[in-house]
Amino acid sequence: MSKAEETKTRIIEQAAVLFNQQGYAGASMSDLMRVTGLQKGGIYNHFRSKDELALAAFDFAANCIQQKFIGALSGKRHAVDRLIAILSVYEHLLDDPPIQGGCPILNTAVESDDTHPALRQRAQLAVDGWRRLIQRVVAQGIQRGELHATVDADAVATILISTIEGAVMLSKLYGDACYLKQALNYLKTYVQQQLAPPG
Amino acid sequence: MSKAEETKTRIIEQAAVLFNQQGYAGASMSDLMRVTGLQKGGIYNHFRSKDELALAAFDFAANCIQQKFIGALSGKRHAVDRLIAILSVYEHLLDDPPIQGGCPILNTAVESDDTHPALRQRAQLAVDGWRRLIQRVVAQGIQRGELHATVDADAVATILISTIEGAVMLSKLYGDACYLKQALNYLKTYVQQQLAPPG
Repeated sequence: MSKAEETKTRIIEQAAVLFNQQGYAGASMSDLMRVTGLQKGGIYNHFRSKDELALAAFDFAANCIQQKFIGALSGKRHAVDRLIAILSVYEHLLDDPPIQGGCPILNTAVESDDTHPALRQRAQLAVDGWRRLIQRVVAQGIQRGELHATVDADAVATILISTIEGAVMLSKLYGDACYLKQALNYLKTYVQQQLAPPG
Repeated sequence: MSKAEETKTRIIEQAAVLFNQQGYAGASMSDLMRVTGLQKGGIYNHFRSKDELALAAFDFAANCIQQKFIGALSGKRHAVDRLIAILSVYEHLLDDPPIQGGCPILNTAVESDDTHPALRQRAQLAVDGWRRLIQRVVAQGIQRGELHATVDADAVATILISTIEGAVMLSKLYGDACYLKQALNYLKTYVQQQLAPPG
């Protein structure tokens, strides 16, 4: 990697944490200068605008989460184990977050929906990917007889993602992991008892 | 109400919509001047700072939601009906919102958790109230034999609030009410089949 590419990557990583904590509108150019240790020109050498950096930072953050999913799913074959592996990615979101500041998908979705079409579209793409992952795991599980044939893969994606993200909101709001833990425990039982035949 | 009180109330209502759509950091003084039609001095006559207005606007928005809960619960006695009434408040959040821009509790919680202690505390108070409402309905339902004696009121509050707020995030992100509808249908079945004895 060239020196310029290294600097660009470092800016993206530092901006991703800043944006995830303060929001895109809430992070000023002077905040970006502070966290990167660069002058304005040093940042604008690599990004034409704060918006271009915002998109790159979100993509980086979303990719961190995606890598966590890939890691958690590795070696898991049974659909129940695979769905529980997806839940497990959020178990340590507060004490060992991929990106400080909570879930970048939740933060970006909530901030961008009425204000920032380009960021909103990136957040949609990230959720699209997450939904497809869950839908594929469910469809394969049904095919193999590991899940009830009547399970609605689309509804399962909505329920898992909604409950996880809402619980992240609660746990971040109170600074207490108990809500996320409660929600993940509930979803684990939901997967084991409502989606899978007893076995 | 005096003329000054009327003006103050109108500023709060207009600011509540602006903040709910653009966020607190994302709404500038010139945005506030635009939506209120007032000069800066006209706004600062009533509020010492943007922060003071932000707190008043959030309290107004949270109160709108609370009034919706009170209205939905009116005349409902059975715990199952009361829990479903709480869900129903969110049925029309997209097509007929109490405050344009989604759920002010979700928006404010996500924006304030790492940045704005005073707003975060107000969002906590709003969620405290919502949790207590659900917990009371569940406790009373257990006492009357309308819900299983083993139901954990605290967990029910977490599951309902998390799933609703996460689904609001999805529906706002995609501009499609289907996710919220899917989540509310699921929660309705959860209340009817998992919390209540058959009957």
